[in-house]
Amino acid sequence: MQKQTKFLLSENDIPRYYYNIMADSPVPATPVLNPMTKEPVTPDFLSALFPMNLIEQEISMDRYIEIPDEVREIYKLWRPTPLIRAHRLEKALDTPAHIYFKYEGVSPSGSHKSNTAVAQAYYNKIAGTKALTTETGAGQWGSALSMACKFFDLDLEVYMVRVSYEQKPYRRYLMETYGAQVYPSPSTRTQAGKAILAQDADSPGSLGIAISEAVEAAAISNGLKKYGLGSVLNHVLLHQSVIGEEAIKQMDMADEYPDVVIGCVGGGSNFAGIAFPFLREKLLNDRDTRFIAVEPTASPTLTRGKYAFDYGDTAQMAPIVKMHTLGHDFIPAKIHAGGLRYHGMAPQMSMMVDAGLVNAVAISQMDVFEAASLFATTEGILPAPESAHAIRGAINEAMDAKALGEKRVILFNLSGHGHFDLTSYQAYNEGKLEHYDYPEEAIASIDERLPNVSLGVTN
Amino acid sequence: MQKQTKFLLSENDIPRYYYNIMADSPVPATPVLNPMTKEPVTPDFLSALFPMNLIEQEISMDRYIEIPDEVREIYKLWRPTPLIRAHRLEKALDTPAHIYFKYEGVSPSGSHKSNTAVAQAYYNKIAGTKALTTETGAGQWGSALSMACKFFDLDLEVYMVRVSYEQKPYRRYLMETYGAQVYPSPSTRTQAGKAILAQDADSPGSLGIAISEAVEAAAISNGLKKYGLGSVLNHVLLHQSVIGEEAIKQMDMADEYPDVVIGCVGGGSNFAGIAFPFLREKLLNDRDTRFIAVEPTASPTLTRGKYAFDYGDTAQMAPIVKMHTLGHDFIPAKIHAGGLRYHGMAPQMSMMVDAGLVNAVAISQMDVFEAASLFATTEGILPAPESAHAIRGAINEAMDAKALGEKRVILFNLSGHGHFDLTSYQAYNEGKLEHYDYPEEAIASIDERLPNVSLGVTN
Repeated sequence: MQKQTKFLLSENDIPRYYYNIMADSPVPATPVLNPMTKEPVTPDFLSALFPMNLIEQEISMDRYIEIPDEVREIYKLWRPTPLIRAHRLEKALDTPAHIYFKYEGVSPSGSHKSNTAVAQAYYNKIAGTKALTTETGAGQWGSALSMACKFFDLDLEVYMVRVSYEQKPYRRYLMETYGAQVYPSPSTRTQAGKAILAQDADSPGSLGIAISEAVEAAAISNGLKKYGLGSVLNHVLLHQSVIGEEAIKQMDMADEYPDVVIGCVGGGSNFAGIAFPFLREKLLNDRDTRFIAVEPTASPTLTRGKYAFDYGDTAQMAPIVKMHTLGHDFIPAKIHAGGLRYHGMAPQMSMMVDAGLVNAVAISQMDVFEAASLFATTEGILPAPESAHAIRGAINEAMDAKALGEKRVILFNLSGHGHFDLTSYQAYNEGKLEHYDYPEEAIASIDERLPNVSLGVTN
Repeated sequence: MQKQTKFLLSENDIPRYYYNIMADSPVPATPVLNPMTKEPVTPDFLSALFPMNLIEQEISMDRYIEIPDEVREIYKLWRPTPLIRAHRLEKALDTPAHIYFKYEGVSPSGSHKSNTAVAQAYYNKIAGTKALTTETGAGQWGSALSMACKFFDLDLEVYMVRVSYEQKPYRRYLMETYGAQVYPSPSTRTQAGKAILAQDADSPGSLGIAISEAVEAAAISNGLKKYGLGSVLNHVLLHQSVIGEEAIKQMDMADEYPDVVIGCVGGGSNFAGIAFPFLREKLLNDRDTRFIAVEPTASPTLTRGKYAFDYGDTAQMAPIVKMHTLGHDFIPAKIHAGGLRYHGMAPQMSMMVDAGLVNAVAISQMDVFEAASLFATTEGILPAPESAHAIRGAINEAMDAKALGEKRVILFNLSGHGHFDLTSYQAYNEGKLEHYDYPEEAIASIDERLPNVSLGVTN
């Protein structure tokens, strides 16, 4: 009866430093290229989009970067987040595995995205920025940045992928309640959006397109607006390290250490957030942990993409980075995990996968919602469809442990709740959810859709 | 910089006993009458609706009732809930008041309702019940009972007030994800529902009507189904005492004691949950605290209703109790705080108001959403429209303290989040929210709409 369920830390345990995996990476950083010249970018190019303090973080090789007091003060509204032992899920699976999850859905905007949103808004504010632009898929990032911008008195314009704008109206209402301006993407507000609409007036949009629009809106603002990205970049990944740093302390409270750490991946930031601090322990302290990144079969960047230089966005305005990619013009199927509909991947994530330190698996939408439903009816929490990919990964590991009759300590990141995704659940409940397999045609044509870069490295 | 924001307890601090205000009430319990005979009810009559273990709690005079281990085990999924100091709201109001809120929205179903839902499902389960029926307004109670019934393997049928069924579809999807059957009320499934529809085919419904339908569905089931109520009854109120018991410990952690405790009231359970343990401290230990119950002007039961014997439901099938009432056939305006659209009040709440121990105020919908919006943009959390009544009450107290230049310690219950109420926020954001004043005509006619009871006491 006295089995512990929640492992809670106090406010004093909110991490004081962000962890930067680049200090410990066994492989060096790959260059970031200017999309026009295809030469390594200059800080000058980046400064049209980002304030210098974030650019410095982006290229930093420091292991630890101090978290400003003003940011930690706001983190107190929801951090430290709980680590929860999924006793009831374990029982339903009848598995000897111990399943833990870190729950980031307690943030006001409902996901891990608030961790970097508050940091980005703060760094922009002290750099003198007055307004930001951004994209959002399912709306987790847009909601998080909307709240953060409101807190720091910054204006915000959000380009929301049209399919999510239509599937998830509550997310838009939330962003508007926080004071943001929200536009469905592709829109007619930008050249990038107009070009896509000219080709396909019914375009469902993609993160790649929405990024193009948000980047363009900032780039043509004569410095009035900067751009904020919710994943992919290293400064975003390192802001998310608070998740893993807390989880290390909490696993210690539970007197266990994870055999496997699991997260879903779209751009890679929530995965990196929970995994990289544990990866540091593996690299520096020989802790034996496996890492599994779970992505959708409909957007199988890590499992079926190519590790190559490609544009970060569809309209070729964002920098070219080396990453696993399905091609910058890839438009994923309309899966309900809108946050995972991205053609590329964080370069640091791709490096770790390429180095064999992180494994990737792809899971289809139906299997994901089956796991989401089982989780909701055992643990109570309704997970975001994105996060449910991690749940499915954890269940698969737990069932494997059961088949082998072994105890296994599984930790996954429940990056957000699904309160704004209930139309997706209803489609599942009514048997109307579509099955999406691998996009074989797009996968076969990746090579011919990649840009030519002349570094003599790849492509 | 080191000001504390969250006050967290450990799992061991989850209360071990429910607190029953009837042990300490300065006024005696009023009788509960059979709606047919208008004589005091027998346990036999009640046992058609409730299992005997809950009937015993309903009439108990014990001060403390032990919480079963099985219930505490499930409480661990979200309890103890945080107590949060609203530093950012205080700053926005520029008030010397200290504002604290107890946040019940962290439960999986998003509100305090889970506290009694789990208890009711458990007590029904051990009594041999196989299925439950219930009503729900905005859906907080229906969601909570859906999850609890799933956990204890009980079937559930929910009659959801039609206006909320239409305004808040996500709540229905959530209940269905937890496995419940949900019907808009008035429905054609019951005689009570058909009778209302015959009078008004477009009836928006009310909690009173939905209760009639759920009671009828249980009453005609030949004992196959029992009925669960989300508020009003004393066993529900005492299940909610975990809120206040935790808050007492947490205020102690903050080294403060509330000058005023505030909650919203529909049936009265979340208010009683936070207030009655503090009221015990006032009655037994002379702690000097004021209590303020906040209700909507559109359904002003405590402020403009009559303290009299009346039916708990519209179709006169539920017991007659002495309470503040607007008349059992009162249909409130379509305010977005669906959970507060009830004609009556918990008898224990009414007793305390009548005895002068609790004060009541009524606030209009527009003022409530203004407060909700300010809260969301300062504290981040999007409150339920119901809970936002308590926020408005707290803001009014804080502004009063400011006007008087005095420090005042304010504690309110944030009974739930508003993630499923975003269409209401959108109506507010777009300037489309209706203003609802007091229903003067209904108030003027209460006397003639009350039942005749022959106790020689009132009516």
